[in-house]
Amino acid sequence: QSSVTLFGTVDTAVSQQSITWRDAVTGQRIKQSRTSLNTMANRPSHLGFRGTEDLGGGLAASFWLEAPVATDSGATGIATFSRRSTLSLSGGFGELRVGRDYTPTSWNDLVFDPFQTLGAGASAIASVSIGAAVNNNNYVRASNTVGYFLPPNLGGFYGHLQYGFSETTRLSGAEPGAGASSHKGRYAGARFGYANGPLNMAVSYGSTVPVDTAAQDRKVVTTNLGASYDFGAVALMMELSRVRNRTATVGFPRYENFDGALLGVTAPVGPGLFRASLSSVRYDEGGVFVQGPRPRTTKLALGYVHNLSKRTALYATVARVTNRNDSRYSGALQSAVSTGYAPTDPYFGPGQAPRGATGYDVGISHSF
Amino acid sequence: QSSVTLFGTVDTAVSQQSITWRDAVTGQRIKQSRTSLNTMANRPSHLGFRGTEDLGGGLAASFWLEAPVATDSGATGIATFSRRSTLSLSGGFGELRVGRDYTPTSWNDLVFDPFQTLGAGASAIASVSIGAAVNNNNYVRASNTVGYFLPPNLGGFYGHLQYGFSETTRLSGAEPGAGASSHKGRYAGARFGYANGPLNMAVSYGSTVPVDTAAQDRKVVTTNLGASYDFGAVALMMELSRVRNRTATVGFPRYENFDGALLGVTAPVGPGLFRASLSSVRYDEGGVFVQGPRPRTTKLALGYVHNLSKRTALYATVARVTNRNDSRYSGALQSAVSTGYAPTDPYFGPGQAPRGATGYDVGISHSF
Amino acid sequence: QSSVTLFGTVDTAVSQQSITWRDAVTGQRIKQSRTSLNTMANRPSHLGFRGTEDLGGGLAASFWLEAPVATDSGATGIATFSRRSTLSLSGGFGELRVGRDYTPTSWNDLVFDPFQTLGAGASAIASVSIGAAVNNNNYVRASNTVGYFLPPNLGGFYGHLQYGFSETTRLSGAEPGAGASSHKGRYAGARFGYANGPLNMAVSYGSTVPVDTAAQDRKVVTTNLGASYDFGAVALMMELSRVRNRTATVGFPRYENFDGALLGVTAPVGPGLFRASLSSVRYDEGGVFVQGPRPRTTKLALGYVHNLSKRTALYATVARVTNRNDSRYSGALQSAVSTGYAPTDPYFGPGQAPRGATGYDVGISHSF
Repeated sequence: QSSVTLFGTVDTAVSQQSITWRDAVTGQRIKQSRTSLNTMANRPSHLGFRGTEDLGGGLAASFWLEAPVATDSGATGIATFSRRSTLSLSGGFGELRVGRDYTPTSWNDLVFDPFQTLGAGASAIASVSIGAAVNNNNYVRASNTVGYFLPPNLGGFYGHLQYGFSETTRLSGAEPGAGASSHKGRYAGARFGYANGPLNMAVSYGSTVPVDTAAQDRKVVTTNLGASYDFGAVALMMELSRVRNRTATVGFPRYENFDGALLGVTAPVGPGLFRASLSSVRYDEGGVFVQGPRPRTTKLALGYVHNLSKRTALYATVARVTNRNDSRYSGALQSAVSTGYAPTDPYFGPGQAPRGATGYDVGISHSF
Repeated sequence: QSSVTLFGTVDTAVSQQSITWRDAVTGQRIKQSRTSLNTMANRPSHLGFRGTEDLGGGLAASFWLEAPVATDSGATGIATFSRRSTLSLSGGFGELRVGRDYTPTSWNDLVFDPFQTLGAGASAIASVSIGAAVNNNNYVRASNTVGYFLPPNLGGFYGHLQYGFSETTRLSGAEPGAGASSHKGRYAGARFGYANGPLNMAVSYGSTVPVDTAAQDRKVVTTNLGASYDFGAVALMMELSRVRNRTATVGFPRYENFDGALLGVTAPVGPGLFRASLSSVRYDEGGVFVQGPRPRTTKLALGYVHNLSKRTALYATVARVTNRNDSRYSGALQSAVSTGYAPTDPYFGPGQAPRGATGYDVGISHSF
Repeated sequence: QSSVTLFGTVDTAVSQQSITWRDAVTGQRIKQSRTSLNTMANRPSHLGFRGTEDLGGGLAASFWLEAPVATDSGATGIATFSRRSTLSLSGGFGELRVGRDYTPTSWNDLVFDPFQTLGAGASAIASVSIGAAVNNNNYVRASNTVGYFLPPNLGGFYGHLQYGFSETTRLSGAEPGAGASSHKGRYAGARFGYANGPLNMAVSYGSTVPVDTAAQDRKVVTTNLGASYDFGAVALMMELSRVRNRTATVGFPRYENFDGALLGVTAPVGPGLFRASLSSVRYDEGGVFVQGPRPRTTKLALGYVHNLSKRTALYATVARVTNRNDSRYSGALQSAVSTGYAPTDPYFGPGQAPRGATGYDVGISHSF
C-alpha cells in the first residue's frame, strides 16, 4: 500500500582492532588483533517500515518499525524492531509517541558526536556507557515507553519527555515471594534544547532501574549537555556527560561516576566530510577501591566520508585509545573502550590493563 | 514489485489488570495488579505481505504471510509468520489453501465475539480454550495444513475443511523406540455456515492430538456454534462452545469439558462503535476430582472504539471477571481467565482462587 | 521507496519419503515413512529486498537481502537473511561484493543439476556434501566474505573469487588459552567458466576450516566441474565433484573423499519442463576403516514442472535412491542421501544401512 515506506541501510566495512599490553607476570608485550567484516562502522545496517496518515485538522497518525540487520553474516534479519518500534499521534500539541524508542539522554551522545557513536570513531562516552560495567539496557533505548515531544514551532526550543513502564507485577497485602513489587526496567527521562541557525544545544537527564530485587537495588542516572556551532567551513561540537551508577546491595551501598567530555569537529570538502573527535571518560568510585590516580580512557578519532551520491558513501576511520588506569583496577574503562567495539571486547584479567588500542574501518554505506 | 501488498497494524494500549483474593492461611485480602504497554488490545499488531496473480480462466494464485509484531518493546519483528502463512489456488471450485492458517473452530470464537478475542474484552471462551489447562497449540491456528473453502456463490452457504499433517515418522515392522508412530500435532476440522443480509450463522468441529506417546494419549475436540443478526441500530451475536479434553494415560482415562456461552452486542454511534459481551465457561471433570458446585468463570466486558479515520481509532475497554470456583479446584478457569490476559497470568496456589479480576485498556490502533 | 524491490517465492508440496532396510538382529524388513508439507521441493520459499542505484560513470551500488521462510508452519519469517545478504559496488572493473553469499563451488552443484539441489530430486552430490558427515557450514554459503566477479563483457568467460574472514582473535606473544589464533570459519574459493550460446561450463575450487582447536584441525576442500549443452529439444548437463575432508586430530590424521558424478537432462514440452538426473557419490576413507567394496549411493530422479504462468507452476517429482554400502559402514551416505531430505534424516544404527529409499513431491510454486 502507498501508505508504507520501506527504508534501510546496508553498511559494510573491513575493520581491524588491535590492543597491546604487558603481561603482569611475564612482563611480555602482547598484541591482540582481529580483522572482521563490520556492519555499523559509518551507518547502522538496518531495515524498516514507516508511514504517516493525515487525519485532518492538523492531526496525524504515524508508525515507525526499524530492525537492526547483521548484513555481514545474514544472521539477523528483521527478527526484532529493537532499533525503534513506535506509534505516534501528532498535532498542534506536539507528538505523543508510544513503544520502544531512543531515550532522551542518548540523543545528545548521538547528535554531538562527529561519528554518531558508530564504528572505531564512536565517542568514549557512548562506548563506556553502553558497556558491561554500567550494564544499563535502557541507555540507548527503552521499551514500553510513553513519550512526548514539544511541537516544532516554539522559536527553536525543543523538548522530549519519556516514561517507560517496568511492567512488573505489584502486590498488596501478603508478600508471596521476592521481587513481587520490583521496579526493574522502569525509565524516566527528559531533554530540552534550542536550535536556531548554526547553533544547537541541549541538556538531558535520565534515570532507570536495571536491578531491583530483595538483595540488590541498582539505579543508573545519566546527565549530559551538548552543543554544536556550524561556522560553515567547519562545525564544532562538544558534550559533557555524567553516568552515575548507584548499587544498593543490602548493607553495602556504592556509587560510581563515569565523567565524560568530548570535543568534535567536522569539515565538508567537496563531496566529502572530514571529521575528528577527542573524547575522554574518567572513572570515580569514591576512593574506596581504586588506588592511585583515577582511571581515565581517552580516544582520538579521525575519519573521512566520501559521498558517491546522496545514498552511497565510501569512508575510512582510524582511532587511537590510550588508557591511564590504576594498576589494580580491572573495571569498565579498559575493556569497554579499548577497542572501540563494545560487542567484541576482549577480556583482560587483573593487571592486564591495555595501555593502548587502535581501530581502523574502511567501508561502504548504501541507503535505500 | 507491484504484485506484493505490504500491510499491517500497530496497536498500543496502556493496560491495567488487577486481581483480588483472600489468602487461604492468613485470610488477608490480596490485590495483585500490573500496568503495561499492550500491543493487541483492539487489533493485533502485525505486519504482512500478500499478493494475488490472475492465471486466467477464473484461476488465481495468491499468498499471505503475516507476522505478529511486539510493537511495545520491538522484541519480536518479522521473526515468524505464525499468524498466517499460506499459498492458495482458487477458482470456480473454491479455494485450496496450504500452510499455516486459522482453524475452522477458531473462526466462530473470533467472528461472534464483539471484541474479536482481543484485549480485556476477549470472550471467556477464547481465553480458557487458549489457556494452559487445555494446552492446545492448534486451538487458534494449525501448521502444515491443507485447507479447502467452498466457492462464494452458493447462495450464502459457506464452508471450510482443514487437515494438518502431524509430520511424524511412521514405522512398520520392528519398533525402535517410543513415539515412533505418534500422531502428535495432527489436526482435522470443518466449519459450515450461512450468511445472508443481516444474518450470519456457523457451526464448526475440530479435533487435534496435542500429546501422543507410549505413556499418554491426549485429544482435544472442539465444537461450537455462533450466530449474529444485524438490526441496524444494534447487532446481536451469540456463541455456544464445548472443548472436550480427553487424556488417556495408561490405565487412567479422563474427560474434561469446558462449556462456554457468549452473548454480545455492538452499536454504531456516529464514527464510533459501542460493544459489550457477557461470556461464561463452566468446568466439568465428570465429578471425579472437583467437589461442590462446578467451577464457573463469567466475564462482562464493555468497550468503545472511536474511529478517527478508516485506518486509525482510539478505544477503551473495561472488563470484570467473577469466578465461582470449587474451593479445592486449582485448574484452568481461575488463572487463564481471571485477568483477561492469558500471556501474563499470575499463578495461584491451592485455595487462592481469585474471586474477581478487572482489566482496562485505553489505546490507539493504526492500520496501513 | 522506489529504490527497493520486494521479491519472493512461496513453494509448498505434499512430500512423502520412505526407506526400507533389514534389521541386523531380527532380519525383519522395516519401512520408515513420513508425509509432510514441504517448502522447498521446487523453489526455496523465501522473501527478500533488493535494489540498485546508478552512481554515474558506469558505477552502481546495489544490495540484496534474502531470507529463507518456512511457509508450511510460519515458524521462520524474516528472522535471518542467511540465503544472501550482500552489498555490491560494480562497474567496468566487475563487481565487488561483501557480506554473506553463495560460495563459488556451490554454483556448479546448483546450475548443473536439473533439480537445482532442491526436493526429492536434489543431486546426491549436494545432499552428501551438505550432510552431517562432512559437517561444513560453508558448503553452500559463507559469511563475512569479500567477493569479486569478472565483468560480463569478456567474450563468454566469467569468474568469481571469494574470501571469508574467520573473524577470530589473533594473539602475539603469550598464549592465554586454547584456540586464541584459530582460523575456524575461514573460506577461500574461486570459479571460472565459459558460457556462449548453448554451451556453459565451469570449474571451481573452495577450501574452508570448520574446526581449528588445539585438539583438532579440520579442513574441507571442494573441487568440481560442470557443463551443460542446450540442443533445443533437450539440454544435457553433467558434473564431477570431489569433497575432501582432512581431519588432523593430534597424532591421528585422516582423509576422506566423497567423489560424485551427475548426468542430467531437461526437455521443454509446451508450458512444461521434463527433467531427469542420475547422480552418484562414492565414499573413500583410504581403506583404513571401511571393509569390502567402497560405499556408494546412487539416485535416479524424474520430474515435471507445469508452468501456469511465468510466476506460478505445479510440479511433481519422484526419486529413488539405492545404496551399496559396506556392511560395517555407518557413515554419511546412508543417512544423508537415503531420503533425499537432509534436514529430516532418520538415524540408522550399525548394520541398519537402508538398501533403498523413495521420495515423492507434488506441489505448487508461486513467485512474486
